[in-house]
Amino acid sequence: MLKPTESAVSKQLDRIETPAAIVDLHRASANAARVCAYLRDHGLGWRPHVKTHKSVEVARIQIEAGAAGLTVATLHEAEVMCQLGVDLLLAHPPVGRAKESRLSGLLQRTPLTVALDSGESLATVARAGADGGQSVPVLVELDVGMGRVGITDPGELTRLASLAEERATTSFAGLLFYPGHIRMSSFEQGPALTEIAERLGTAIETLSRAGLTPGIVSGGSTPTLWRSHEIPGLTEVRAGTCIFHDRDSVALGAGTSDDIAYHVLATVVSAHPDRAVVDAGSKALAREEFRAGGGGYGLLPDHPEVRLVSLSEEHGILDLTSSQWRPAVGDRVRIVPNHVCVSVNLQDRLFSPGPNGLRPVHLEGRGRQQ
Amino acid sequence: MLKPTESAVSKQLDRIETPAAIVDLHRASANAARVCAYLRDHGLGWRPHVKTHKSVEVARIQIEAGAAGLTVATLHEAEVMCQLGVDLLLAHPPVGRAKESRLSGLLQRTPLTVALDSGESLATVARAGADGGQSVPVLVELDVGMGRVGITDPGELTRLASLAEERATTSFAGLLFYPGHIRMSSFEQGPALTEIAERLGTAIETLSRAGLTPGIVSGGSTPTLWRSHEIPGLTEVRAGTCIFHDRDSVALGAGTSDDIAYHVLATVVSAHPDRAVVDAGSKALAREEFRAGGGGYGLLPDHPEVRLVSLSEEHGILDLTSSQWRPAVGDRVRIVPNHVCVSVNLQDRLFSPGPNGLRPVHLEGRGRQQ
Repeated sequence: MLKPTESAVSKQLDRIETPAAIVDLHRASANAARVCAYLRDHGLGWRPHVKTHKSVEVARIQIEAGAAGLTVATLHEAEVMCQLGVDLLLAHPPVGRAKESRLSGLLQRTPLTVALDSGESLATVARAGADGGQSVPVLVELDVGMGRVGITDPGELTRLASLAEERATTSFAGLLFYPGHIRMSSFEQGPALTEIAERLGTAIETLSRAGLTPGIVSGGSTPTLWRSHEIPGLTEVRAGTCIFHDRDSVALGAGTSDDIAYHVLATVVSAHPDRAVVDAGSKALAREEFRAGGGGYGLLPDHPEVRLVSLSEEHGILDLTSSQWRPAVGDRVRIVPNHVCVSVNLQDRLFSPGPNGLRPVHLEGRGRQQ
Repeated sequence: MLKPTESAVSKQLDRIETPAAIVDLHRASANAARVCAYLRDHGLGWRPHVKTHKSVEVARIQIEAGAAGLTVATLHEAEVMCQLGVDLLLAHPPVGRAKESRLSGLLQRTPLTVALDSGESLATVARAGADGGQSVPVLVELDVGMGRVGITDPGELTRLASLAEERATTSFAGLLFYPGHIRMSSFEQGPALTEIAERLGTAIETLSRAGLTPGIVSGGSTPTLWRSHEIPGLTEVRAGTCIFHDRDSVALGAGTSDDIAYHVLATVVSAHPDRAVVDAGSKALAREEFRAGGGGYGLLPDHPEVRLVSLSEEHGILDLTSSQWRPAVGDRVRIVPNHVCVSVNLQDRLFSPGPNGLRPVHLEGRGRQQ
């Protein structure tokens, strides 16, 4: 990929209507390569969650870097990503008739593994498998203490795994967990990685004693990414945010500011002695709390001392009291959101600066297409 | 409009894939009629902000009820709504070349008034007017203390109004304010309505003394809607949320729970002794704080004692500890978001139950279409 000249890029960026989401695919590729190198060194696979980007083009970057497959949260994401011909993992329990028929269609088109935590969801998957004339690999979801989806008790987890193995159109393929509540930094509450690893170890042991040794142990997230090798039994990591990074992931130490590959370009539309108002609000950045605390809805990489103190739907308010910088109406500002996945989800498309102008990066997996 | 039978509706709702946004257009029509009747009684116009729904069909309901025009925040919303042939108000200051050329195209197609608070934005509008060969009516925006867009000082406001009047391709049409920071309930902080009215009165007086009596005084929001008659000088109200209502607007007393015309239908995908997990998260409801405090990301109208305590992107966590209700995996749940405008903005389309099945309500004004 040709790196565009700085002057061509800035001319394009001056011209585009704001708010506009800008992606740096060179950085995204470098991020993907770094993740793959680390995981390969430790004998782990990467199955990145596409919820971060929802883009076939970005997924291709991940696969070319060495991702073993992709993780999806919605059936629409799965339908879009199956053109890439890699193994997909649906990491959200499908339930009910509408999901069942859509899933059965999908099974004709792509190898798909499904994570779930209930007999009801297993029944949905089994019926979809029967419709599609095949057996669907199932991961049972372990709750390592977050209290979202998942089974806490290893015995109960093992019973569901057995059930998946016994049914004609499903098979037990392993387990999945999500440590979204982990304490990775001193400013967070939650259990340490060792505690998560312990719960996981007990579950693996219980399953194995029942003759259900998990082939796949799927875990991880961007905050825990670089400590994946400390989790015994883990086989693959689903970390998604690490392709672009954001204010949260950098604050948690999962990336540096040089790794950030996404920002929203905004224009100052109103300027005052101690504040400026930009045209990026909650409909461009999303109102997500900063995980490190202290507030603010994004980082201004060119003016890190400025606080984005509040968001309306189409306005962002910059508090300039800690800064010497006094922007004029019309000035452009780059903003890194707290949480990139939900900001990307608000865009029609991303823009990638290139030698021939700003090129759209399509977000084919956006929405649901019921 | 034919009201669908209850049984037909529930069959359709059982079938649809979730999360799905459901709109009750009968209630929306009743809401619009109620707003228009109140404002008409007080000699005020309604220029509803379409940011809430972004739908031509819903805008048509507002116009048929008697709305005098529509308010938009983005040029894309304006481009979509101009097919309705009513006066549009752009309530977000356009700045820069990209906006200028788009605005000039728009001026060929629709009568458009623009609100702004700076010479730079006025220059953008004036150039767009010149390109379009016409004079653009301008509202100057007064800051009544919120600290977003707007000019606080009445003298400065008057100078900008003068400038708008002097330029060949703009004219001064009045003033606009937004009391988003007002204290409407005991649980809120901020100034009382009388304080807002006082600031507005001073601005109107200062403009009038300079021979710039504002023809239009555009204000209001859903929280202040029913007290609009207490604001001397006001000519029109932009309240948008009142077409659908939400948990916030009901908590603020702007509507009752019977007025709520929008909810997200979700499915329980994981059930536990004290919690249930639904498939509507921040990508369906939006993570918006409840204005009345006390947390929670939405209201369950059928189980108001249940708290929607946390959202992941595709998961909502229901805390069942205060409820006798214990849903099973597969059960359907209706959720009213805290803030309807940002939830609608996350949908591909809304669904309206009707005698012939669920019918899509299109959101043509969604996104930006740069």
